[in-house]
Formats: sequence, structure tokens, C-alpha cells
Amino acid sequence: MEELKNVNKKFREINEFFSPKIIAEVNDVFVKLVRIKGDKIPWHNHKDEDELFYVLEGELLMEVEGEAGFVMKAGDIYVVKRGMGHRISSLGESRIMLIENKSTAHTGEVKTAITRSIEEQL
Amino acid sequence: MEELKNVNKKFREINEFFSPKIIAEVNDVFVKLVRIKGDKIPWHNHKDEDELFYVLEGELLMEVEGEAGFVMKAGDIYVVKRGMGHRISSLGESRIMLIENKSTAHTGEVKTAITRSIEEQL
Repeated sequence: MEELKNVNKKFREINEFFSPKIIAEVNDVFVKLVRIKGDKIPWHNHKDEDELFYVLEGELLMEVEGEAGFVMKAGDIYVVKRGMGHRISSLGESRIMLIENKSTAHTGEVKTAITRSIEEQL
Repeated sequence: MEELKNVNKKFREINEFFSPKIIAEVNDVFVKLVRIKGDKIPWHNHKDEDELFYVLEGELLMEVEGEAGFVMKAGDIYVVKRGMGHRISSLGESRIMLIENKSTAHTGEVKTAITRSIEEQL
């Protein structure tokens, strides 16, 4: 039998900010949870992959190239289309769900201290 | 710019039970919202596609072939693997998110009065 997961339980196991953790795998997709606090995520893009952001708690500042930044609140969903430069940050803590292809690199081709490999996201 | 969606706002537009509505598209995947109340969904499977169930509100009874049924509560995530017969029901209303490939047929190859085409899920 497949394992029953719980979002709140999984968040209790996540100690680091900016560090996505995979909660489920469905077809070619990973569903990940991330705690965000601060602005350490660099501008980056994913050349061939859309990325879905779903805010579960808190307020997330979403910035996409060529657009005014905007705040996402609990329940909000936004898809950053492939190739679009973007960055997320949060003054207080926000908790988000990501839906993205398994092939998607955390911070695209930009590597910083917060960048995590897929192995580190397990 | 892509459109900012909100889960709660979308649910306010959903009047029917069992009728999935697409809230977002990301790569080859649709993210859908569904209100469930009662047991009108037939046993079915999706031969080539996993299907992710994420309970947002209420309690959902998940039944998978060969396993004891179990109740999923808010925050719970379960993936029904491809080919596995399954059925969901809910005594009271439950509200769930589905993550599935665009190719996934609502009730597999089983058609009943509640079966909805992709066009009807837009």
C-alpha cells in the first residue's frame, strides 16, 4: 500500500528555510513543501518547465520578470511559466507547496548556498 | 501575466458535488478541485496514470482494491498508483485537490451520470 502523508506533519520535520522537501510523487511530478523566510532565493528560471506555487500559510512576495511584484496569501495559486525569471521572498514565514516536474532544478542554473539537489529534497 | 488563482474563491464557484474543476495547469498536469458528498463515484482505475488526492476540508473515505478503506482528513495526501481500482466517498462534505495528468479520464473507463469530460472541468 502507498503511504498516507500529511502536510502539517511533514512541515514539523522541516527545520530549514528555503529547503524544499518532497512530500509526494505523482507520474512525472514532485509535490514539495517549503518554508520561506527572508530573501535568500536568487532570481532564476527553469528553461523548459512551468512551476506551480500554492501558498498554504503566510504571505509570499512573488516577483516575475517584467511584472510588478505581488503578494500571495493562503489559498493563492500562481504558475510561473517556463523560461520566466522569478524570485520569491517572505518578510515573515510563509509555507508553500510546489508542483513541478521531477527534472526541475531548485534554483535553475543559478547555484547559491541555499540551492538543494533532488537528493537533499527527499 | 499569468492569472493569480485562489482555492477558496474557486470553491465558491463550484455548485455540484463530484464535478472536478481545473484551477491550474502546470506542464502536463491539471490541478483540480472537487467537492465530495455521498458515494456516487463508481469503482474505477486509470490504467497508465497515478492520481494524487489532497484533502483540504472534511473527511474522505478512500478505498483501494485489496486494502482496508481508510479516512483521509485535512492535510492528508495519498497517491493512487496507476491501474489500482479505487473509489472515494464522503458522508459529510469534503473538499479535495487532485493532481493528475491531463490525459486522465474522470472515472476511468467507467461512465456514470456524474462522469465529467475535460471540457466540463474547465
